[in-house]
Amino acid sequence: MKKYRLAFIGMGPGGADWITPAAWQQIAAADYIYASARLQDTVEDALPAFSGFFSLGTKERTWRIFNGRLTTLVEPILDDLERGNVVVLCTGDTGIFSIASWLNRVISERLPQQPIDWLPGISSLQYLSAKLKRSWQNLRIISLHGREPEDLDEVFRSKEPLGIFTDPHHSPHWLATQLIEAGRGEAQMSCGYSLTYPEEEIVTGSVRSFLTSPEEETRLCLVIVSEKTSVEEQTPSPWEKGFAGGMPDHAFQRGNRPMTKSVIRSRLASLL
Amino acid sequence: MKKYRLAFIGMGPGGADWITPAAWQQIAAADYIYASARLQDTVEDALPAFSGFFSLGTKERTWRIFNGRLTTLVEPILDDLERGNVVVLCTGDTGIFSIASWLNRVISERLPQQPIDWLPGISSLQYLSAKLKRSWQNLRIISLHGREPEDLDEVFRSKEPLGIFTDPHHSPHWLATQLIEAGRGEAQMSCGYSLTYPEEEIVTGSVRSFLTSPEEETRLCLVIVSEKTSVEEQTPSPWEKGFAGGMPDHAFQRGNRPMTKSVIRSRLASLL
Repeated sequence: MKKYRLAFIGMGPGGADWITPAAWQQIAAADYIYASARLQDTVEDALPAFSGFFSLGTKERTWRIFNGRLTTLVEPILDDLERGNVVVLCTGDTGIFSIASWLNRVISERLPQQPIDWLPGISSLQYLSAKLKRSWQNLRIISLHGREPEDLDEVFRSKEPLGIFTDPHHSPHWLATQLIEAGRGEAQMSCGYSLTYPEEEIVTGSVRSFLTSPEEETRLCLVIVSEKTSVEEQTPSPWEKGFAGGMPDHAFQRGNRPMTKSVIRSRLASLL
Repeated sequence: MKKYRLAFIGMGPGGADWITPAAWQQIAAADYIYASARLQDTVEDALPAFSGFFSLGTKERTWRIFNGRLTTLVEPILDDLERGNVVVLCTGDTGIFSIASWLNRVISERLPQQPIDWLPGISSLQYLSAKLKRSWQNLRIISLHGREPEDLDEVFRSKEPLGIFTDPHHSPHWLATQLIEAGRGEAQMSCGYSLTYPEEEIVTGSVRSFLTSPEEETRLCLVIVSEKTSVEEQTPSPWEKGFAGGMPDHAFQRGNRPMTKSVIRSRLASLL
């Protein structure tokens, strides 16, 4: 009996340049592609160029667009596996708060002999860390996407550096409120919005400075928080040395309370 | 004054299929490429195909092969930046125990105005996690590459799941010895050797079972350790359900002491 394959593919933060050749190959060879509308756009825009590279000709592909509840995916995936190879496009990496874990468990319970592959992708955590020129191996990584971990208060009160996946309600503004309450108002916070997309924006300032950001944040957003000293020890950012052009951020500091020029800049720009 | 760019590029575990298009573009556009001999081979073997894709023509590139001490790289990089764009190829991801951190600090001290980019890559930690169909966000990540963290005893005694970058001396055998001493002999341990290369091997068994592995391990190796229950809860592996063909590993278990069939298999194969 012929067995078709199922693959969960880590697609990186969004931009086509961050999708690995291994992922492109699997996508191009798939019969059924499960994806969000956002990832479908990314792939369809870029696939022609990559198809030429992988010499894949004019294979027909069926898109299955999903948005929201994972439970609705299970039966269609099982059906499609009767007739062809299935890939499920996952945001970021398959190993970090990914839909791959839940779907893998449910589908392998239903179809124990089904071969399943996971393909790793670049996590937005890695991308934002690279933009900030810092390492992430010491970050405590948490997700507030649609839920709050039980030990969240303890996490906020600890002085651990944090990598935080947010959602519209758990916005940078909400985070700032919680962290100030936990006594970390002067820690350094970097927010990456719409990472790898043309409208990408990265804002760094004190936790306190994000009180001026919107209460709800509908853009995809990732946050890194660390006590200021540890970031400085690790890698001084160019703007901390005052050579990024214009007045350096530290020229705006009063004692321990920076006025977070970069945040003000971005707020002003958004009003133009 | 014309400024050339310096980029640190995360190259993934090794195989060309795991190098992002963004990385290929930067490599192909570089004038000077700093790399280990191993990464030079990877790139030179694959670049012709990717060059066609990126339409880069016949640009001349100078390779600077390094092996060992980072301090010897600083002066040559500063020299080369006078004449062209420089990239430094880094194993894995730039954000996890990478040479990018140290080099970035030293070079930005010497040349404060130098533009520097970091490009994230797939870490072997992500690749091995994907192969094991598990998430890694809860792993405590440590590196034993050429050094031991100060709190290593405490780390081993805790029941935290671990992701461990090894070196020839800190081999799976050495780790097993330490972990048994810390009371974790029955935890589950997975070792990935030469990941993404044709000779890739992944072995899973109890910590105790790795006492039969060589005391020194010269292959590139990454280890994931977790208490057995937590792995099972997360994602039951196909062979734990006994449908991988042949006799399932659990058929070899006696009480709490598995005989680690997969390890025995791999040892036997290595003797053929």
